[in-house]
Amino acid sequence: MGSLDTNPMSFSALPGDKAAFEPLNPEDVRAYLHKAVDFISDYYTNIESMPVLPSVKPGYLQDELSASPPTYSAPFDVTMKELRTSVVPGMTHWASPNFFAFFPSTNSAAAIVGDLIASAMNTVGFTWQASPASTEMEVLALDWLAQLLRLPTTFMNRTSTGRGTGGGVILGTTSEAMLVTLVAIRSIPTGPETNYGLDPSKLLEVMQADANAGLVPTYVCATVGTTSSNAVDPVGAIADVAAMFNAWVHVDAAYAGSACICPEFRHHLDGVERVDSISMSPHKWLLTCLDCTCLYVRDAHRVSDSLETNPEYLKNDTTESGEVTDLKDMQVGVGRRFRGLKLWMVMRTYGTAKLQEHIRSDVAMAKMFEDFVHADERFEVVVPRNFALVCFRIKASGAITEEDADEANRVLMDNLNKTGKAYLAHTVVGDKFVLRFAVGSSLQEERHIRSAWDLIKKTTSSIMA
Amino acid sequence: MGSLDTNPMSFSALPGDKAAFEPLNPEDVRAYLHKAVDFISDYYTNIESMPVLPSVKPGYLQDELSASPPTYSAPFDVTMKELRTSVVPGMTHWASPNFFAFFPSTNSAAAIVGDLIASAMNTVGFTWQASPASTEMEVLALDWLAQLLRLPTTFMNRTSTGRGTGGGVILGTTSEAMLVTLVAIRSIPTGPETNYGLDPSKLLEVMQADANAGLVPTYVCATVGTTSSNAVDPVGAIADVAAMFNAWVHVDAAYAGSACICPEFRHHLDGVERVDSISMSPHKWLLTCLDCTCLYVRDAHRVSDSLETNPEYLKNDTTESGEVTDLKDMQVGVGRRFRGLKLWMVMRTYGTAKLQEHIRSDVAMAKMFEDFVHADERFEVVVPRNFALVCFRIKASGAITEEDADEANRVLMDNLNKTGKAYLAHTVVGDKFVLRFAVGSSLQEERHIRSAWDLIKKTTSSIMA
Repeated sequence: MGSLDTNPMSFSALPGDKAAFEPLNPEDVRAYLHKAVDFISDYYTNIESMPVLPSVKPGYLQDELSASPPTYSAPFDVTMKELRTSVVPGMTHWASPNFFAFFPSTNSAAAIVGDLIASAMNTVGFTWQASPASTEMEVLALDWLAQLLRLPTTFMNRTSTGRGTGGGVILGTTSEAMLVTLVAIRSIPTGPETNYGLDPSKLLEVMQADANAGLVPTYVCATVGTTSSNAVDPVGAIADVAAMFNAWVHVDAAYAGSACICPEFRHHLDGVERVDSISMSPHKWLLTCLDCTCLYVRDAHRVSDSLETNPEYLKNDTTESGEVTDLKDMQVGVGRRFRGLKLWMVMRTYGTAKLQEHIRSDVAMAKMFEDFVHADERFEVVVPRNFALVCFRIKASGAITEEDADEANRVLMDNLNKTGKAYLAHTVVGDKFVLRFAVGSSLQEERHIRSAWDLIKKTTSSIMA
Repeated sequence: MGSLDTNPMSFSALPGDKAAFEPLNPEDVRAYLHKAVDFISDYYTNIESMPVLPSVKPGYLQDELSASPPTYSAPFDVTMKELRTSVVPGMTHWASPNFFAFFPSTNSAAAIVGDLIASAMNTVGFTWQASPASTEMEVLALDWLAQLLRLPTTFMNRTSTGRGTGGGVILGTTSEAMLVTLVAIRSIPTGPETNYGLDPSKLLEVMQADANAGLVPTYVCATVGTTSSNAVDPVGAIADVAAMFNAWVHVDAAYAGSACICPEFRHHLDGVERVDSISMSPHKWLLTCLDCTCLYVRDAHRVSDSLETNPEYLKNDTTESGEVTDLKDMQVGVGRRFRGLKLWMVMRTYGTAKLQEHIRSDVAMAKMFEDFVHADERFEVVVPRNFALVCFRIKASGAITEEDADEANRVLMDNLNKTGKAYLAHTVVGDKFVLRFAVGSSLQEERHIRSAWDLIKKTTSSIMA
């Protein structure tokens, strides 16, 4: 080992205290957790008064905390104190009602409890036998959600007539979901004539050209609700084009899929009975904390036949009976936590009606904001709003060129974010710099949208002056 | 949509109650969580009396719970009641002190709190800017752990002399970790002459044959502590062979990596300064609940240059400054929860000395069990014990053929597992059916090892009779 390669820490004989170390002592667990619960409840109560985006500099935490791990244990209160004084001031508060950037990461009391109990039970549900209730709960929660989304029964694990051919799995992210089903293809440009949705005739043209060149088009990903502007690709028409080439069709409905539990939004999934797989992320808009991406596959065997792992130490009678789904065969890894519990807790506790109300309330607030923008002639709504995201900007007009407008919007965003009273992200649509106002943070109420709009108007006036 | 494709659930107008829906209401969060905390504390207190492996049949949970999601919300107590009556009886209790199967999934009060607070904050740390403290905490926790493992400073994000060239990321599973660094190569057989570790001379032979055939060997994975029998590949010797072909070397130390925080085990990583990447999973043996796999890369840019995603809506000044690590560039997906918090909480709260004590205590208990096996002439220890896993079996001798012994061990395992008093898994080593006795469940004490051994002896006597 060269000297530059030598880690500064050295081992030494350590005099420990003599009490037995019981990391899961039930009374410690109870005491620590009650402190954490009070911390969380206070955090939510005070979150509105904290800057959404912190002003810390890169490396700040390494400067504040010890550069090396402590040798001896500390009272848990010390850990909690450092959390309060060093960690919280460097957090971007995604749970703040003044958060309008990216997409909200929604959450709920039931989801947090589900995740907490999953953490405490700490089961590894790679095979059905390794923890039957974990697998059954994940299958049940996915089948429930499939019903809320009115997915075809071909995607379900169990239907009213018995075990189905379909199946699902909960993954960490959409990318994992795509990886599980993927051989990547090229991206195809979209434009304002389809509101930035994929044009099936362009898809046909590209796939035909590939086929003519001797290539084999194998995989098409349609998106329902893009991150950039919430554009919606026409699922059915894309499935029809892909079918001509026998290509796999995946639908990425990570964000907007949650809205499809309401009948008025479900049409965005029309044609899903002709696709091969679909993923959506309750951690985005269905009140379930990270990580929770649900992947559904119409013919589950087409995935599990490729991903199946079968080392000797995992063999067991139940697997061999073919009666169960071993979820390890539907993912890249083998280990997995009790992923279905929080999703079930959310649906079980709140019920469909409340979940629909939650979506509608967010959409109504976004529509209110959209109306504000329409009513102020300095601004434009850049693409029609589909869900709870409004893409808007200071518009070019009169002496203000497109270039001026881009710069004004950039300054507007920076100035807004610096206040700590709101946090917005941006995108570029059709060469224009556009602000994204994403409604839906779980603590958000109408008054937060009104305040943010007042702040936007005031900040714009001072920029224009 | 054909009739078979029609999902039975239909949308209908739903009269909801009129109270505003506040899924994160701080008082509800507090009330729900306190109930969950009491549930967890009771669960740990009573876990020893529950059968480790449940006796439920496939489909049991779907039979007990509603097949469709409820339309209206229920009091949270209803959810908790169904958890107790339907879910818990179908769980395999990985936290039980009578769990000896696979590897333990260790846990601690501090880890659960870290995970709980991460769930509640629910930040998405894809870029540094998206939540500075999340990224800084993950970097800090990984640098702390690198010091515990005495990894070369080339793997660290920040060293005493400033920002390093290395870097790490916490992933869900080792497979994700390998995927991030991987182009797969063939598996190479191992045998008893190296205690089932990889023989560097065989590796050289295979790689040279590939190169002679015009192939380009690109990736070698060495394992420190295989799942099957805890075999250890010689890291340094493998790195030397791989260097002749300029191949990437990854070290999978998922389980045994945790032991390397003790000086007496650290030699298993000797040579790590010459490899490209290493992953280990604190969720296996370092008291941290799932998911937590740490990947370290010596030259972080070699990974992030390939995995980097840079959509317009994620662009920001801090990323462009090059001063920070955006963890999305070290993983397959983009979204990610606050993964560093629980790992930091574990190291911060317990300190190195207790963590070493925890490893040593598990190893001592495994050694005690190994001594029990050695002292009973009906049994054999099949491969030398390296850590806290004992691979043993009823041995063939006299009238008992190898085939008879295999069958006797199979029956022994089934009968043990059916008692609900212990849960063991098996493997096959050198054609022999072998029982794996994995010590280390976080609630385990010496008396659980003694009871399990008594049960094994008694059950063996009744089989042999």
